[in-house]
Amino acid sequence: MSHSPDLTSLREAIDACDAELVSLLAKRKSLTEQVGKVKQMTGAPLYAPEREAALIEARRNQAQSAGVNPELVEDILRRMMREAYENQQGELACVAPELSPVVVVGGQGAMGQLFVKQFKRSGFEVRVLDKVQQSEAHDLVKDAKLVLVSVPINAFDRVISQLPQLNADCLLVDVTSVKQAPIKSMLTKHQGPVMGLHPMFGPDISHWVKQTIVACEGRAAASCDALLSQLAVWGSNIVQLDAKKHDQAMQIIQVMRHLTTFVYGQFLSKQCHTLAELRSCSSPIYQLELMMVGRLFAQSPELYSDIMLAQFGDVEGLLASYQDTFASTLEKLKRGDKEALIESFSEAKAYFSDAASQFLQQSRGLLNKANDAKVLD
Amino acid sequence: MSHSPDLTSLREAIDACDAELVSLLAKRKSLTEQVGKVKQMTGAPLYAPEREAALIEARRNQAQSAGVNPELVEDILRRMMREAYENQQGELACVAPELSPVVVVGGQGAMGQLFVKQFKRSGFEVRVLDKVQQSEAHDLVKDAKLVLVSVPINAFDRVISQLPQLNADCLLVDVTSVKQAPIKSMLTKHQGPVMGLHPMFGPDISHWVKQTIVACEGRAAASCDALLSQLAVWGSNIVQLDAKKHDQAMQIIQVMRHLTTFVYGQFLSKQCHTLAELRSCSSPIYQLELMMVGRLFAQSPELYSDIMLAQFGDVEGLLASYQDTFASTLEKLKRGDKEALIESFSEAKAYFSDAASQFLQQSRGLLNKANDAKVLD
Repeated sequence: MSHSPDLTSLREAIDACDAELVSLLAKRKSLTEQVGKVKQMTGAPLYAPEREAALIEARRNQAQSAGVNPELVEDILRRMMREAYENQQGELACVAPELSPVVVVGGQGAMGQLFVKQFKRSGFEVRVLDKVQQSEAHDLVKDAKLVLVSVPINAFDRVISQLPQLNADCLLVDVTSVKQAPIKSMLTKHQGPVMGLHPMFGPDISHWVKQTIVACEGRAAASCDALLSQLAVWGSNIVQLDAKKHDQAMQIIQVMRHLTTFVYGQFLSKQCHTLAELRSCSSPIYQLELMMVGRLFAQSPELYSDIMLAQFGDVEGLLASYQDTFASTLEKLKRGDKEALIESFSEAKAYFSDAASQFLQQSRGLLNKANDAKVLD
Repeated sequence: MSHSPDLTSLREAIDACDAELVSLLAKRKSLTEQVGKVKQMTGAPLYAPEREAALIEARRNQAQSAGVNPELVEDILRRMMREAYENQQGELACVAPELSPVVVVGGQGAMGQLFVKQFKRSGFEVRVLDKVQQSEAHDLVKDAKLVLVSVPINAFDRVISQLPQLNADCLLVDVTSVKQAPIKSMLTKHQGPVMGLHPMFGPDISHWVKQTIVACEGRAAASCDALLSQLAVWGSNIVQLDAKKHDQAMQIIQVMRHLTTFVYGQFLSKQCHTLAELRSCSSPIYQLELMMVGRLFAQSPELYSDIMLAQFGDVEGLLASYQDTFASTLEKLKRGDKEALIESFSEAKAYFSDAASQFLQQSRGLLNKANDAKVLD
């Protein structure tokens, strides 16, 4: 009996409060599901930024008057909105009926299945062309208005060359993570409209709202715009980018980051401290960094080595530049050259500019959220 | 008029639902504040893990029956709990009255102030000994039962040597981020109980609950245990660690990570892509990584260069080892030596072991949360 009776009755009152909350969430769920149905009928986009902003603003104001922290209210509202998006798994509006029938090449892969499902939800006629359907390829594509290719990058050129001739008005699109070479292949194969997409998400997303998709021009036509409108109805955030610019940015970000993380993981494994020891004396921010390093090693060594080797030719120069920067930083430290260190730091600081302090603040907010969820335990 | 009337009335119903939520949060706040007062009177710890677990379990079960996602309910409950901890800023229980009066050396610094405030909340007599109080140092410490030193590491030895003689039963504690050297200084200065603490948080924490503090033994005594009990009442998570082990782990984690991040930031600033361009084609996980790099450059170049130079002697060997690992990885890639890459990857994979897939899953959860809050926009 370590608790006074007071504490017990207070806890019962809190439990009653929380039980009301769960009932409220059930009620809200049924309302947002009805909203989803109305949007499906009217073709309104799932994501309505102005409505979201107005809803949050009104509740923040109410919170202020009620002596409740507005940040708490906003955090909870945003979490409920994510839930609402995830629950809207029914039918979706179709704003590009001229793109039906759709053929998804590689439609049995994880990413292909995601597109098949989404097009179907919007009422498109969707056909899957994967390995087992090869013999029917001709029939499947002959009246297609959109052919979306979702195959691994190393199979891409072969798949494109094996594709039957498409109608001149058919839109040919890919969703691989590089853009120059696939667009070039598609333009050679097909005389009609061509577009390259790079979805900035994997097949495990729980909903499409606010997910970014980079779109690179191949051969423009009205059907390209129609597809982008359909993606917008699903709530996607479209970023138009030059294919070359896109590919360079991907090399800098993805490939480089993978490699330095790979090296850092190897380095850690050579030290005489177990991961548990390191974690026990890491502050939340280092726990987060360890998580970002360690997650890489959930992958298959064989697959990962293949990926690194395939990309190496493109990033050899970048890696050499990173290595030089590392070596020259070490030299400055050995010389005790404070002036040179300040100068290097200032250059990077100028590059990040206002984003640096914004990142610092955002990472604090994120750590609070991680801490709530005991993510970093 | 793009919205049908149905949508308008549904949105009104959602707003009514959300308004109820805000009222519920106000009610809950008043209840948790009363809980705080009861705990202060009874000396019960602020953080009661079993109660938290039971509360969450009961609401998850209710959610399941009501057709609501239990994960949604748990996320909201955890966010509300954080709020409750942050709101409990009143008086706290004191379970170590024998440590009063407390002298906080450096009590006008940000971290010192945090400890001053917390000891005061628990009813300790707290005295600040900072630069302006130097002339009264003797009087301030003469009957002190606990002297807690919170000064920058480069001032530590000087401050300790200037400290007046303490009573034999006084507990001398520091809170710097290295542990061997400060503990050694304190043991030389003082013949009584000594302990080294490293709080894994900065002065900007909003509450002490679940915050980790590493404790390293100096010269053990009952008063060390009393202080640890008081920290536990505040909700802190105490990790006992050998000072040498602690310092090595800090070098591997903090210093190394800072340096590789510094190099990566310089590298990015030399590329011909603006940060905005890179961000526009980064998936959420790379946005998060960019955030982790960019946040470093919110600091002052001068201060940061000083820190790097001060630490360089201790980590020169580690940096050389990282550089070697980088160079040998590049060599393997140049040779196209897939076997060697697989072997290196497997070694790091073995080091991270089960944590790798756990990290992968946790980082996905964290990205969802970041996405809710539009942290990565």
